Amino acid sequence: MRRANLRYKPRMTLPRLTNAQAPLTQEVSVLNERGEGETLSIPAERALTVYVDKTELLTVMTLGTSPELLVLGWLRNQRLVEQLEEVVSITVDWDCGEHGEGAAAVATRGGLRDLEAKTAKKTVTTGCGQGSVYGGLMDALDGVRLDEAAQLKKSDLLGLLDAVRRQETTYKSAGSVHGCALFEGPKLLFFVEDVGRHNAIDTIAGWMWMQGLASANKVLYTTGRLTSEMVMKAAQMGVAVVVSRSGITAMGHEIAQKLGVCAIGRAINSRFVVYSAANRLKFEA
Amino acid sequence: MRRANLRYKPRMTLPRLTNAQAPLTQEVSVLNERGEGETLSIPAERALTVYVDKTELLTVMTLGTSPELLVLGWLRNQRLVEQLEEVVSITVDWDCGEHGEGAAAVATRGGLRDLEAKTAKKTVTTGCGQGSVYGGLMDALDGVRLDEAAQLKKSDLLGLLDAVRRQETTYKSAGSVHGCALFEGPKLLFFVEDVGRHNAIDTIAGWMWMQGLASANKVLYTTGRLTSEMVMKAAQMGVAVVVSRSGITAMGHEIAQKLGVCAIGRAINSRFVVYSAANRLKFEA
Repeated sequence: MRRANLRYKPRMTLPRLTNAQAPLTQEVSVLNERGEGETLSIPAERALTVYVDKTELLTVMTLGTSPELLVLGWLRNQRLVEQLEEVVSITVDWDCGEHGEGAAAVATRGGLRDLEAKTAKKTVTTGCGQGSVYGGLMDALDGVRLDEAAQLKKSDLLGLLDAVRRQETTYKSAGSVHGCALFEGPKLLFFVEDVGRHNAIDTIAGWMWMQGLASANKVLYTTGRLTSEMVMKAAQMGVAVVVSRSGITAMGHEIAQKLGVCAIGRAINSRFVVYSAANRLKFEA
Repeated sequence: MRRANLRYKPRMTLPRLTNAQAPLTQEVSVLNERGEGETLSIPAERALTVYVDKTELLTVMTLGTSPELLVLGWLRNQRLVEQLEEVVSITVDWDCGEHGEGAAAVATRGGLRDLEAKTAKKTVTTGCGQGSVYGGLMDALDGVRLDEAAQLKKSDLLGLLDAVRRQETTYKSAGSVHGCALFEGPKLLFFVEDVGRHNAIDTIAGWMWMQGLASANKVLYTTGRLTSEMVMKAAQMGVAVVVSRSGITAMGHEIAQKLGVCAIGRAINSRFVVYSAANRLKFEA
């Protein structure tokens, strides 16, 4: 006998993602200021062209850490895909060109709706790596509702900053990349680096989506500045607290205030400033 | 009597540019890590929508230092305008919207050629602020020929770094912006900051164009990383030496080597590394 209040929800089929790997750094010979030869590591930077159902959509420059999650998160943050089930698979191949160019083939269940309309209006933003925001993103802000109860304890913020400091990174070995991390309190859930900070946040969005994670009480950490687009992307992901090693721009500040995003900047070791929604940060005795 | 080898070139009419001004910083109230109130400066970030002959082209997020030169340089670096005479005027107005949005009205002599074709293929890059490179930029590399004789003395490089250090900046007062400067030897010609480093380099391109400056023996300094697009833009401007406070990515390195751009990174005070075309840097006794 089947009870009426027990709903059998068929388990959602997750998109099939490849796990394409490529070296994240390479060694180069340089001269130092005394004219002496040295060997240094520098981060990879690869062109990844995204095809959706065999139609070329765009080319992204990326470090190449998690290209499948990057593409998935990008599709979501651009609101080109609304439901995870729409994506059947994302297949990345790094051996498509003579310079290590890659291709990401996205197969969808029924095509992307309104693709032309959504990609028609371009905004070139302050973003690193994922700078293009298609039109309508600003409009979408009206629909953003963050959990009013989402908070972070100061002790957890300090724990978070300590975890960031201890993380092994491409930045430490090669420089010139941005890092982004998702936390639950002081607990590091996912960490990613990319040549652009927007790639990094998109990759986190892709990861959250695959995990089916609710974003209330998640905290987003970024090494990059809190520009308008960074704050918007966090809010769209439902994240109410963002922490940056760097500062904030006026528009990032305005949007954070408007949406109630607690924006914390200049956060290194035990120092930080709270730019907005300070009620979300709990200064304990 | 007119001599055959004396050509009278009519003096070119320069585009008329407005000189739109807007505050570069604003003060905000923050809490510090002890929960105490403080006042901090943060940099402005404005949406500037570019209209070419009344057709909307794109929206750029910018600090707003030199919006007219930014738009001019952007049009050039995207190869949407080939000759300065094609541009009649650029008129910027910062009072177009309730949040201080701006509009840049570009009037051209005969319209932009191939606008649709040139804006059809998008690349989302690692760039801050000016991230979108339209297709064909990579193709354009084949046409780049840098002056083989262009060199920089180490003493001039150190003088350049000292001038950067002494420069009064929005970065020093408000953080969160990138700076870019054009030098001739150790002499600072033009300095600009923006929320995105690509905006900054585009503004320099616009300034050089208006000045009619030859770019041989010019040096471009940037606080940002030397990604593929930064090196490409410098090379397209004819600049053979680029200096960054930050590092280089693998693709920036590859392109610098291919084009013979002397890429110098990690340059602070008297320290630096030379990544490519080291023959252009003269280590004197």
